[in-house]
Amino acid sequence: MTQDKNRRVILTTRASGLPTPELFTIIEDSIPTIEDDQILLKNIYVSADPGMKGWISKAKNYASVETGATMSSFGVGVVIKSQNSNVNEGDYFVGNTGWQDYSVINPDDPGTRKVNPSVGPLSTSLGVLGHSALTAYFGLLEIGQPLAGETVLVSTAAGSVGSAVGQIANIKGCRTIGITGGKEKARLCTEEFGYDSAIDYKSTQDLEKELKGASPNGYDVYYDNVGGRTLDIVTGLMKQNGRIVICGTAATEEWLPPPTGMRLERQVLINRLQIKGFILFDFRERYEDALSDIYQWFNDGKMNYREDISEGLEKAPNALSGLYRGENTGRCLIRVHPDPTL
Amino acid sequence: MTQDKNRRVILTTRASGLPTPELFTIIEDSIPTIEDDQILLKNIYVSADPGMKGWISKAKNYASVETGATMSSFGVGVVIKSQNSNVNEGDYFVGNTGWQDYSVINPDDPGTRKVNPSVGPLSTSLGVLGHSALTAYFGLLEIGQPLAGETVLVSTAAGSVGSAVGQIANIKGCRTIGITGGKEKARLCTEEFGYDSAIDYKSTQDLEKELKGASPNGYDVYYDNVGGRTLDIVTGLMKQNGRIVICGTAATEEWLPPPTGMRLERQVLINRLQIKGFILFDFRERYEDALSDIYQWFNDGKMNYREDISEGLEKAPNALSGLYRGENTGRCLIRVHPDPTL
Repeated sequence: MTQDKNRRVILTTRASGLPTPELFTIIEDSIPTIEDDQILLKNIYVSADPGMKGWISKAKNYASVETGATMSSFGVGVVIKSQNSNVNEGDYFVGNTGWQDYSVINPDDPGTRKVNPSVGPLSTSLGVLGHSALTAYFGLLEIGQPLAGETVLVSTAAGSVGSAVGQIANIKGCRTIGITGGKEKARLCTEEFGYDSAIDYKSTQDLEKELKGASPNGYDVYYDNVGGRTLDIVTGLMKQNGRIVICGTAATEEWLPPPTGMRLERQVLINRLQIKGFILFDFRERYEDALSDIYQWFNDGKMNYREDISEGLEKAPNALSGLYRGENTGRCLIRVHPDPTL
Repeated sequence: MTQDKNRRVILTTRASGLPTPELFTIIEDSIPTIEDDQILLKNIYVSADPGMKGWISKAKNYASVETGATMSSFGVGVVIKSQNSNVNEGDYFVGNTGWQDYSVINPDDPGTRKVNPSVGPLSTSLGVLGHSALTAYFGLLEIGQPLAGETVLVSTAAGSVGSAVGQIANIKGCRTIGITGGKEKARLCTEEFGYDSAIDYKSTQDLEKELKGASPNGYDVYYDNVGGRTLDIVTGLMKQNGRIVICGTAATEEWLPPPTGMRLERQVLINRLQIKGFILFDFRERYEDALSDIYQWFNDGKMNYREDISEGLEKAPNALSGLYRGENTGRCLIRVHPDPTL
């Protein structure tokens, strides 16, 4: 692609259910200009994240994309212009690029960071060496606080966050059980991501029974990416003083009107459970410390991963809607420009 | 009462709803004998507690009373026989006496403690100088962890636990809002228990609106003794990083079949809330430390209280069922024998 235009994927309509490609359109305008201290990225990969459902929903959220604005997204790109004395052209940076060809970035913004492409493929800076692993790291270790020997249950266990949770829990000496959708993903869980066992929720008639069978004494930590009926069931299977990390709510398509479920407070009381919500951004001042652990584990071969890369910016809306149908295996990325490191 | 028999209130049928007097019967047998290290208490006050609903329910609980057994209960009595070298006849002790005239107690059991009747009336050793205040103390300070200047919301705000929560929150420099049932209890909240404002849920058509009005910026801590619909509403009104202490579930009459409510995980996620269950017994090794704080506050006139004392052991089942109809004001006790300190 040699072009002097910037294509941007714009949110045209807020979602009242799962994201569909029709909510977005692509427009083209000129490549933006930078000011003092800023850099211009030529984006190489941008991402499609389960949390985006919330960002574009009609229901109130922690982060929101306005209609008419470029869709927010993590991305990694190469610096093609710099007015920041600490950044050179040719450097690679991760930041909130949005779904577009080129992005103006303030390198000092929290969560923005320079990428060393020698640690792993550039794409992993958005996944197993980036946000997915960071989400797993802080959610599991800071909120879930598992102890060696404890049993950790993970939903969307083969996904980019879930697979990192399972592997970090293993590294910390925990027993790990995964819940995933499909036989191939269940196989990945045990063969690639080190889970002690995996439950394919799509092929079971009785998830509660399967979960009891996988850990008859219950669960110490539940890292939850889905919420919904699975959360209700698992809450009843937690051990005393168990901790539930609420990282995502993928199982609920629509929050308006408010959906109902089982009342959980009695189980919470009887078993002294903790249910705690978690958003990665709150830990952005500590990303570098976490990444030094994650790089080490990656170099030691303890952090396997899968990626699912769509080709071309225009594929981003489709990639996003596919996420909620469970079509992807691993980190869902969109390649916007050719990866010069490959 | 001069008798050489021991009357005991026995659970005859497990509850499948709120406790009713018909679940219990009184039997009479001989005064029990003690063994080495034990003491025999002549009980003066025993209690009726909201948590008893769970103890006698058909649904699984953290504590359970078997049918045919003496109903469990806190109680305070005078030592009339001692085979423990550290305990003298005439000492006063709090322990798990059960609903009966006389109880065999092991003074070293966790949660059992000697009472100094000079600090306050003997009855307060089960309330504002005992379990009610201890429940408030640990639930608020250890689970809720309020900071000075934060806003603390309390349900059953005029009750024995709730009124202690409100006052301890005040002592810690918090703004306090109470939810209670009835105008007289709302008056007590603000005039006796120091709440900045009180909401009478029985006289409002729109609890959510009232709660928003009482604290437009939301709540930092919710000390919840009721669960149910109120919990659902409050969860949506919590500030970021808010903490919900689950201390009781009085609003739900029956847990089998499991009742439904609003799904809460999205609010938990967006606002990084913590919902955590709490049972006082878990802190029993630390009662004495807490009581030294509580005695100090009591002596300083910062711990007001109300008591609702029924006369005679046979009134215990009625007192318990009255609790759930909100008939009592303050700590619900049953006087089993005359109080020699009055």
